[in-house]
Formats: sequence, structure tokens, C-alpha cells
Amino acid sequence: MQRNLRLTLSYDGFDFHGWQVQPGQPTIQGTLAEAILRLTHEQVLPQGSGRTDAGVHALAQVASFVTESNVPTENFAKALNGFLPAAIRVLKAEVALPEFHARHSAKAKTYEYRIFRGEVLPPFLHRYVCHHPYPLFEEAMAEAAMVVVGEHDFTSFAAVDPERTARMAAEGEDLPHNVRTVFSSGFERRGEEMVYRVRGNGFLHHMVRNLVGTFLLVGKGTITAKDVAVILAAKNRTAAGATAPGNGLFLVSVEY
Amino acid sequence: MQRNLRLTLSYDGFDFHGWQVQPGQPTIQGTLAEAILRLTHEQVLPQGSGRTDAGVHALAQVASFVTESNVPTENFAKALNGFLPAAIRVLKAEVALPEFHARHSAKAKTYEYRIFRGEVLPPFLHRYVCHHPYPLFEEAMAEAAMVVVGEHDFTSFAAVDPERTARMAAEGEDLPHNVRTVFSSGFERRGEEMVYRVRGNGFLHHMVRNLVGTFLLVGKGTITAKDVAVILAAKNRTAAGATAPGNGLFLVSVEY
Repeated sequence: MQRNLRLTLSYDGFDFHGWQVQPGQPTIQGTLAEAILRLTHEQVLPQGSGRTDAGVHALAQVASFVTESNVPTENFAKALNGFLPAAIRVLKAEVALPEFHARHSAKAKTYEYRIFRGEVLPPFLHRYVCHHPYPLFEEAMAEAAMVVVGEHDFTSFAAVDPERTARMAAEGEDLPHNVRTVFSSGFERRGEEMVYRVRGNGFLHHMVRNLVGTFLLVGKGTITAKDVAVILAAKNRTAAGATAPGNGLFLVSVEY
Repeated sequence: MQRNLRLTLSYDGFDFHGWQVQPGQPTIQGTLAEAILRLTHEQVLPQGSGRTDAGVHALAQVASFVTESNVPTENFAKALNGFLPAAIRVLKAEVALPEFHARHSAKAKTYEYRIFRGEVLPPFLHRYVCHHPYPLFEEAMAEAAMVVVGEHDFTSFAAVDPERTARMAAEGEDLPHNVRTVFSSGFERRGEEMVYRVRGNGFLHHMVRNLVGTFLLVGKGTITAKDVAVILAAKNRTAAGATAPGNGLFLVSVEY
């Protein structure tokens, strides 16, 4: 009997070339597809809620795929974990409605970006944070983070994404627009870390990392929070700051 | 001017073949020697307080070496960190008395071994814990841990170590004896982890990992805490449990 399965996954992305399957490179999607193949003998490509970049981590990514295997749903998570490397864990497997699709059905996502502020980066954290031990105007960064709340065209913070354009054309979707709604956006202190947390209805390619790169410019005093509003209005990628490193970024949750 | 330098180091040992330099393998000592060479142009082999095995971590390992470089002591840590991979950090560099030797001068060491008890091992922890999600008699393990406190011949928990024997012979030292004093030994709960913490005046090769492997046998009910006393008295390695995996072990501190 056909089931549409929904998996909740956590992964340490440090040693992977991102979510999306790529020939000859270890990816989360490719590794997961291989585990599913070994468990069910079915060749499927699980669809994630979105592609995470190389080095990016997930606390609770969601993926869906259709299976005809007779492995009981309640055994799926444990059985897949037996075939997966320790850096990827299936936390939950459940039957979804036939129309459920991890990407199309997603209503909101939350990301966190960790910036370590201490002078010496503990070796156990280097895979999970971006290290910035230099002075930062943290209040100005908090102010800048609030600028992006609301519905905006985020072109200034979007990497050009030829694959997405090609996929949408292939699927007959309209040409991509870059309007997204950010529900909340702010920094919080956790010990020696500054954590940027953002929740929105969708995120463009590299968007969170480009926002963080721009907020860091504000922190350094290169630009002000008001400049961030100007950059946002410019709808031009060259106006914003550099892309912050992938390994500080965590996909925290996906809402449906 | 010659200085005897004492470094305090922290490292994530997961990707290293242990402390001791080995041709063609990444080791902590070899990587540190290379960083010192790049900084001072001196070929030295820093001496650690002891060799950690492949995969074993350190919160505060101590190493010493003699340098004639004119790099100021207060700049040494930061400068070395610039040449070291993020998995190894020098926390402190200070001038020691000429007779100080990181291994010979050590008076006590503390190790911790982390056992993760939850059913699903978070991917961010797999490099730092041993995963044991099955039932364990934790009280019996606590009792067994106390058995080894005091001065004992720990031959039953010592791996045969041909390198050590050869080194001692080369250095004209007496043949190794296996008597050590354990000052404290016990388990504590930290969230989903059981942490074994042991402090002693010295540890034989694989000793902490062999103790943990034996305590796990007690936890599983295969043997009792009283059997641990019998194993200790047997002075025979084959009497004890298997060696627990290296990646759960941390050298916490060294006292002088």
C-alpha cells in the first residue's frame, strides 16, 4: 500500500555538501536516499522543506517521499538510522496526507545563526558557529534585525540561484518572485554567543547568511541600521554585505 | 634566550590519530610541532603530559618544549592558533622552570568519559560521547566505580604498550610497574548523559577506557561490583571488560 511518509531529521551538515543530491559528493538528500534504498529497495528522492547549503545544520528538517514498502511506519526511523551515518538522525517518521509535500506545504521556517564572541573559539564549537571576537555594536545589530520584519522583496539578500529558476521553469511554475514575509527577526545572547533567530514564510537562497553578513557590517559600524532599510529597498544583491559562513547556520524548525 | 614553555591546549581529537606523532597520520603532537616550526623556525617535539589515544579529546592538555625563539611569551598562544587547525587551540602559554617537564612533573590528572543514554543520539554529539541507549544498573556502576579508588596494581586494566616499554628502556628507566593511585572515581548524571569522572596520579595505556568498559559490564548485569574487585586483584588484562570507544573520553586537567 502506498504511503506518503513525512520524516523529521536532524543533521550535522559540516561534512556534507548541502542538502541537494550531487554526483560524487556526500549530501544529506543523497545519503538519505541511499538509506531508504537499502531499507526498502525503492529508489526515491526524498523532498526536503528546502535545500540547506554546504555546512549548514538542521535541528528539525522535514522531508517527504512516497513508499510502497511494507516496513511499518513506527519502525521506519530506527531502521533508517541503522543505515545512516551518525551525523544524520531521523527523529520521527509519520504518515502524511497524500497531498503533503515537505517543500510546497511549508508555511513557516525558523533559522538560527550562531556567532561566537569569545577570544578563543573552543575546538568543540568550530563546526557550529562563526567566530567573531572583535568589537561589535550589538544594539545597532538588534535594531538592524528589526528592519527586515514584514513583507518585503528580499532580492538584495538573495543569491542568484540558477537551479531554482531552471526547476521552476521545468515544473511550469511562474518565474520566481522574491517577496517573502519575515514574522520575527532578532538577536539574543547565549553565554559567549550572539544568536540571530529569524522566522518567516520562506527564505531565498543564502538569505539568512546574507542578512547576517549585513548585520555584521552594522555591528562593525561600517553601515547603520537605516542603511539596511535602504539596502532592502534597493532590491539589488550588490548593495548588501558578504555571505556569512554556512557552518553557523541551523534550520531550527518547519511549520505546516 | 632559552625558555622552557608550558602550553595549555584544548583539542577535538575526533579527526586525529591521537597525541603522538606518527608519519603520514594527523596527530596532535605532530600538528603542534608543525605550528611551532612555522612560528619559530625551530624543529621541536613538544612533550605532552601523556599520550591521548585516537579520537580522545582534551579540555586542558599540557605540553612543554624548549625554545630559543624571540617571540614574546604573551604572543605565543595567539600566534600558534593562527597556524593550528580550529580543532586544536592553545589556551595559554607561560614560561616554566627549566626542570619542568609536562609528563615527568605531572602529579595528577582528571579524565571524564561521557555515555549518552537517550534513544536517539543527537548528530552534534556523536564525536563526543559513547552511545548506550540500553538499560543499565546505574547504581551498581556507581558502586563498581568506587572499588578502584586507592593505590592498586592496575595491570588488569592496562593495554600492553610496547612503545612505552621501548621508550623506558631507551631512557634507562626501570621496567614499568603498573601501580597507580586513583584519588576519586565516580559517575554523575548530566541530563541524558552518564559521566564517569576519575582523578589519579597517573593512568596506564587505555586504563580509563578499560575501566569504563568493565563498569558497562556491571551496568548490564554481566558481572557485579564485587567482581570488579576480583578483576583488579587478578592483575590480568583478560579478566576485564572491552575497551570503550576513544571518542567518549576527555582529558579534563593535569595538576603539577
